[in-house]
Amino acid sequence: MYRLDVKIRLHNGSDVAFGPGKADLLEAIAQYGSISAAARALGMSYRRAWLLVETMNRSFRQPLVSTLAGGKHGGGTQLTETGEQVLQRYRLLCAQALAAVQAECDALAGLLAETAAEG
Amino acid sequence: MYRLDVKIRLHNGSDVAFGPGKADLLEAIAQYGSISAAARALGMSYRRAWLLVETMNRSFRQPLVSTLAGGKHGGGTQLTETGEQVLQRYRLLCAQALAAVQAECDALAGLLAETAAEG
Repeated sequence: MYRLDVKIRLHNGSDVAFGPGKADLLEAIAQYGSISAAARALGMSYRRAWLLVETMNRSFRQPLVSTLAGGKHGGGTQLTETGEQVLQRYRLLCAQALAAVQAECDALAGLLAETAAEG
Repeated sequence: MYRLDVKIRLHNGSDVAFGPGKADLLEAIAQYGSISAAARALGMSYRRAWLLVETMNRSFRQPLVSTLAGGKHGGGTQLTETGEQVLQRYRLLCAQALAAVQAECDALAGLLAETAAEG
């Protein structure tokens, strides 16, 4: 019963421009249409979610999340085209990395104690 | 000036059987021939290093680190054949994952603000 976990982070200068937590947050924002609802769904404070969005938005040439005026933390928060593109490319990146190492991982997992046949 | 960081962890049941920290520790043990010297070199407590070794040793069919009797925390600590094999396979795994995502990463990094041409 082994499991391979691949975490990919894109650093830009001293910032983590993108990584697993930011990807999950973007997905939740796309789903709930608000930063506060996304934060709640992920068990994250609003402040932390907001800081992650701020880091993402300043890390890329175009913001990844846009909030329309009117209403506090309210509706109208959504991913920009860049946001959708970054999220999609990142998920692809992770899938590619996982696929690339699957064979080698099986060999490594073969050395584990009490490993079930399936991965 | 972006940098891609790929962290791969192999979970076995509820344990992290192997990952970046354990790989660095194995390398340091191989280099210094002792858990305490390896821990010191990595700025890690002896206790933490010892716990990581214990987890690794119980996660695989064969122990990864062996300590010969005589002397406390002393010389005679080295990687077993399995230890060397796991370390080597893990480094290969990480290199493969990184190589697999390089092209896609460059595309993603192209969306970053103030990115230097080189990766």
